[in-house]
Amino acid sequence: MTATFITENFLLQNDDAVRLYHEYARDMPIVDYHCHLPPEQIATDHRFQNLAQIWLSGDHYKWRAMRAAGVAERYCTGDASDWEKFEKWAETVPRTLRNPLYHWTHLELNRPFGINDRLLSPETAQGIWDQAGEMLAREDFSCRGIMKQMKVVAVCTTDDPCDSLQHHQAITSDPSFDILVLPTFRPDKGMAVDNLAVFNPWVDRLAEAADIDVKGYASFLEAIRQRHDHFHTVGGRLSDHGVETFYDAYATDAEMEAVFQKARAGKELSSEEIQKFKMTLLYEFALLDHEKGWTQQFHIGAMRNNNTRLFARLGPDTGFDSMGDWSVALPLSRFLDRLDRDDRLAKTILYNLNPGMNDVLATMIGNFQDGVTAGKMQYGSGWWFLDQKDGMERQIEVLSNQGLLSQFVGMLTDSRSFLSYTRHEYFRRILCNLLGTEMEQGLLPADFDLIGPMVQDVSYHNAARYFGFDL
Amino acid sequence: MTATFITENFLLQNDDAVRLYHEYARDMPIVDYHCHLPPEQIATDHRFQNLAQIWLSGDHYKWRAMRAAGVAERYCTGDASDWEKFEKWAETVPRTLRNPLYHWTHLELNRPFGINDRLLSPETAQGIWDQAGEMLAREDFSCRGIMKQMKVVAVCTTDDPCDSLQHHQAITSDPSFDILVLPTFRPDKGMAVDNLAVFNPWVDRLAEAADIDVKGYASFLEAIRQRHDHFHTVGGRLSDHGVETFYDAYATDAEMEAVFQKARAGKELSSEEIQKFKMTLLYEFALLDHEKGWTQQFHIGAMRNNNTRLFARLGPDTGFDSMGDWSVALPLSRFLDRLDRDDRLAKTILYNLNPGMNDVLATMIGNFQDGVTAGKMQYGSGWWFLDQKDGMERQIEVLSNQGLLSQFVGMLTDSRSFLSYTRHEYFRRILCNLLGTEMEQGLLPADFDLIGPMVQDVSYHNAARYFGFDL
Amino acid sequence: MTATFITENFLLQNDDAVRLYHEYARDMPIVDYHCHLPPEQIATDHRFQNLAQIWLSGDHYKWRAMRAAGVAERYCTGDASDWEKFEKWAETVPRTLRNPLYHWTHLELNRPFGINDRLLSPETAQGIWDQAGEMLAREDFSCRGIMKQMKVVAVCTTDDPCDSLQHHQAITSDPSFDILVLPTFRPDKGMAVDNLAVFNPWVDRLAEAADIDVKGYASFLEAIRQRHDHFHTVGGRLSDHGVETFYDAYATDAEMEAVFQKARAGKELSSEEIQKFKMTLLYEFALLDHEKGWTQQFHIGAMRNNNTRLFARLGPDTGFDSMGDWSVALPLSRFLDRLDRDDRLAKTILYNLNPGMNDVLATMIGNFQDGVTAGKMQYGSGWWFLDQKDGMERQIEVLSNQGLLSQFVGMLTDSRSFLSYTRHEYFRRILCNLLGTEMEQGLLPADFDLIGPMVQDVSYHNAARYFGFDL
Repeated sequence: MTATFITENFLLQNDDAVRLYHEYARDMPIVDYHCHLPPEQIATDHRFQNLAQIWLSGDHYKWRAMRAAGVAERYCTGDASDWEKFEKWAETVPRTLRNPLYHWTHLELNRPFGINDRLLSPETAQGIWDQAGEMLAREDFSCRGIMKQMKVVAVCTTDDPCDSLQHHQAITSDPSFDILVLPTFRPDKGMAVDNLAVFNPWVDRLAEAADIDVKGYASFLEAIRQRHDHFHTVGGRLSDHGVETFYDAYATDAEMEAVFQKARAGKELSSEEIQKFKMTLLYEFALLDHEKGWTQQFHIGAMRNNNTRLFARLGPDTGFDSMGDWSVALPLSRFLDRLDRDDRLAKTILYNLNPGMNDVLATMIGNFQDGVTAGKMQYGSGWWFLDQKDGMERQIEVLSNQGLLSQFVGMLTDSRSFLSYTRHEYFRRILCNLLGTEMEQGLLPADFDLIGPMVQDVSYHNAARYFGFDL
Repeated sequence: MTATFITENFLLQNDDAVRLYHEYARDMPIVDYHCHLPPEQIATDHRFQNLAQIWLSGDHYKWRAMRAAGVAERYCTGDASDWEKFEKWAETVPRTLRNPLYHWTHLELNRPFGINDRLLSPETAQGIWDQAGEMLAREDFSCRGIMKQMKVVAVCTTDDPCDSLQHHQAITSDPSFDILVLPTFRPDKGMAVDNLAVFNPWVDRLAEAADIDVKGYASFLEAIRQRHDHFHTVGGRLSDHGVETFYDAYATDAEMEAVFQKARAGKELSSEEIQKFKMTLLYEFALLDHEKGWTQQFHIGAMRNNNTRLFARLGPDTGFDSMGDWSVALPLSRFLDRLDRDDRLAKTILYNLNPGMNDVLATMIGNFQDGVTAGKMQYGSGWWFLDQKDGMERQIEVLSNQGLLSQFVGMLTDSRSFLSYTRHEYFRRILCNLLGTEMEQGLLPADFDLIGPMVQDVSYHNAARYFGFDL
Repeated sequence: MTATFITENFLLQNDDAVRLYHEYARDMPIVDYHCHLPPEQIATDHRFQNLAQIWLSGDHYKWRAMRAAGVAERYCTGDASDWEKFEKWAETVPRTLRNPLYHWTHLELNRPFGINDRLLSPETAQGIWDQAGEMLAREDFSCRGIMKQMKVVAVCTTDDPCDSLQHHQAITSDPSFDILVLPTFRPDKGMAVDNLAVFNPWVDRLAEAADIDVKGYASFLEAIRQRHDHFHTVGGRLSDHGVETFYDAYATDAEMEAVFQKARAGKELSSEEIQKFKMTLLYEFALLDHEKGWTQQFHIGAMRNNNTRLFARLGPDTGFDSMGDWSVALPLSRFLDRLDRDDRLAKTILYNLNPGMNDVLATMIGNFQDGVTAGKMQYGSGWWFLDQKDGMERQIEVLSNQGLLSQFVGMLTDSRSFLSYTRHEYFRRILCNLLGTEMEQGLLPADFDLIGPMVQDVSYHNAARYFGFDL
């Protein structure tokens, strides 16, 4: 039986890297400022019954790999038993060599489970299932237990504006739990006028949540603002927006009113109407963020739901998304400039999905740094398909060359799983390895008093400072 | 005289890489599932008279390098003697340092010629010319002789649907030769309605080959199907398509009939008509491939014949092509979805030419993996300008990160030359070096029983299984 | 106090790299064939009073980093004192770790100042300011003094066609100074019909400079030709053009006349008119370059002046530019082909800004190599945002794979500063490190007689030969 390769110095290729990681990075707390954890599970301190529930349920990364390995849908999203699904996953794991899933899987078995004497495979599946299952029954492996083990101090979930945020409120008012769990305002469905089956019910829910009679565009905006205020009260300090790309197209209030009414009447909109509505609303969201000193996040470039057949059966977020190749530079520049022009540009993080665009986005942020807030404009960490060693290394490389790595707010999990916190460990090891290697090669001064604090800033302090959380 | 640098451990930077290559990869047979070898030369077991004929004739990679080095056209495609051309090539070689031609040249001198005591240069040109010339006169350096030396077990040539395939039939029926030589259905000219001087004569030839009176779109499709059937009978299991990009534009049968008649009448078509005709026909080709369980290949992104002056003189495929930068994500997604929607998507290989699009294409395949055929959707090996060390490493890296390297059908020569089989050696060395290096660095488990079989799968077994050849 | 990391073998990771650099590259003279130095400062042999004046004034790279670090505009472009600006820069430097500015800063302190016993930081700022200030007062630190110290033999400044070139003439006629200082013809403003506030005054100045009554398109061209002739007389052998992208749109003479008159009348032009005017004029410039055997340079892909607010305050070239993502392959191919078709394509250098397009541009040059002038078409060195270690390495890698590195005309500073000549040192170290590493790894023959001369060609000889300077 091969022992795991996730050793103490995993990813650390030289002595300086080792020292940077163990002396500066390893023990820093975690601020996970963007994730998709269900707040209810934190509020109720949910416990998972087995590895399949905590690991495979909802994980479209794994489903995608399983399908590519020829595993039938029944074992991904279907009605197979938890054990059957886990067994198929264990068969798939050895086929994922060199895929980030292979690293993540064994990082997560190592922490928090402490399973590092073997690799996951069909031969070891039963033993790992049993051993992890026993641990999951323990208090320190509840949702909150895992978060504490991993030194998490703050997480930002991703929430619909219509959400009551009752779970966030419950968590905050529980004196026995001191990890910050804050909501993030994600109003994508409010822009979805290209899909009225999504948009119209959402407007109804919004009206209800805000307790406002949404009769037109003005009251629509008023209801949105009401929800934004509510998020702020509950501690929200970030918004998030998924955009394929930006468009340089904006509507007047009168045009917005007309499009809104047309949409509410269920009439299909022209492509121009859709683009203008989306961009104008995105601009309105941005104003709200600026008013309150929030940070706005843009996740740019995903092309979603490519597989019609399986979308009909499984819905969104099931592993059928990929990278788009839209042009983005000019309309994004105009959008940011439109805000900056009136000095209403909030702190902003641009997450890029298509690595062919890395440098385009990383140079964009430099156009709007304002000389007031250090690192105001951020080029975000490698996202989704780029959330892997090569993707992180390139993000760090590009940010270093085109901006200031020292100001970077660092890693986030973007995950639906309580087991993903080792993603921060992975990032920190990669960061320390890059820096340590350059110290050894003489590309950076071999000065730990210079490099060490930078590692700590990027691992924790920058995020802790930047977002204005009450840590 | 400097000995060649093509030593036993060329490209293998550490012990694990060395062991992976020599114990697992080196002796695997070759399935060259996509090439441009002339079947007639295999059927007649052609022998080349000298290095110029086997090496320089038709090799637009070399011509392109020679032109960049200031060598006149006469020595590339012109009427200079074989020796003169070789002499100019020998002068050019030292100027190609760091270009893949420098590696390929010395890999090919090393195998099959066994010339590894010197580098090609003006000083060594005569000696190498003489020595290789003597070998080429021997039986084991005939076309078939070289293929046997290189452990080739199957090759797929690239053939026009109008081809009678008589040479393939002759080869198959020759009991003295047991290498599979199969045709590939490449109907690009049938889509060439943007160039009626190519399209119309092709339709005439198609009608003759199929013995069908092609009067309209329906009989055009019928004739195409007849040829597809014929290719299948002769052992064809792949199609291949060169496309600049895809378009999300499809025509009805009536529209296709109208465009077909317009084209046959020699009338110029609108850009919309051209795009719709091409995409609709591509869709029809795809249905044929799915019906018979074939694999469809798409070579995406070449911008051809950029040099009008030399195109007029030399025709296509003479070294005046480069990479395009068309947008491809959305229309390609729609094309594959259109097929998948009705469960008629054949096994598919996407070859990408513009490395700025690598990740876009590599994530696309994941949208259509079906959980039935492992590795059904393939992100193909580095193509043309990317068929070099850096290009291969990136293809492997991107495929590893965005898909499953373990399911990869691996390398192909895509070559017009019988000397190109060391391209498989080159690929295998690069693959073993990447994997061995990660084993040494602790990024992969240092377990040869885990990694070794994966090397063999990617080198040979996956291809042998995937295409359904009768090996 | 940490000594600088800019040691003798900075960037040279192995013995072969060390030997290549110190024996072949280090002492080669510098041909800086593209820069933005003010010729007046060379003519008058200007001396700078302090480090702020020679280092920070006009350096939008540094301003951009300072803003990202939260330094107020007053200390970048504002009315703070020289010392205050330097002090803020010294605070910023430690925050630029891994940014090219960190390397450049210490390379420049090392040469010509010889300050290599400490790193720039708030603690060392005063000492460095004093020490460098004393040196700047010396004769060998005048503009000419620095150029001589750095072994510069030729520089090409970048000049408006309306410039009298009096400073170039003064320099040339000064027998005490033997460095070639030649003008480059940069007529961007003549194409700026999308900005008539720039275009029209420029046409007025052009008319005056050429002493031609510019009444229409024909006399406009005549005046341009007159200036081109003048530049040639003064030693100019290059033109330079900043283009966002190319368009496949050309106008007839009549159309050009109409657009010219419309522009002169201050009427806004349509996007089609603008594109046609620009491309047709670019074509005319190209004909002039071909006639005289010049080299034309295209700097492709910058998206400028993204920040309206600060553009209004500070004007262009102040650090608010970034990379565009325009499609370029097809229209660039058509432009070059249009010239080549009639055999009127001048020697050409394509500089690419968006690294996602590197391979597209690098393969483009191969379409128009003519087999007469070795290396006629050049894929230029990493430009602006790509003028850093990673950008240079990729440019060399891509050029090596897609063309011939051996024919490369090499590095240029593209700089406004007399301190930037260590950029050539930086490039040569990187080049030698890549080549030496491949020698050590067995990827290149370990033959210094083969590789050494190539290093010297790329460092100096190719540029010295290619441009036709009278060295």
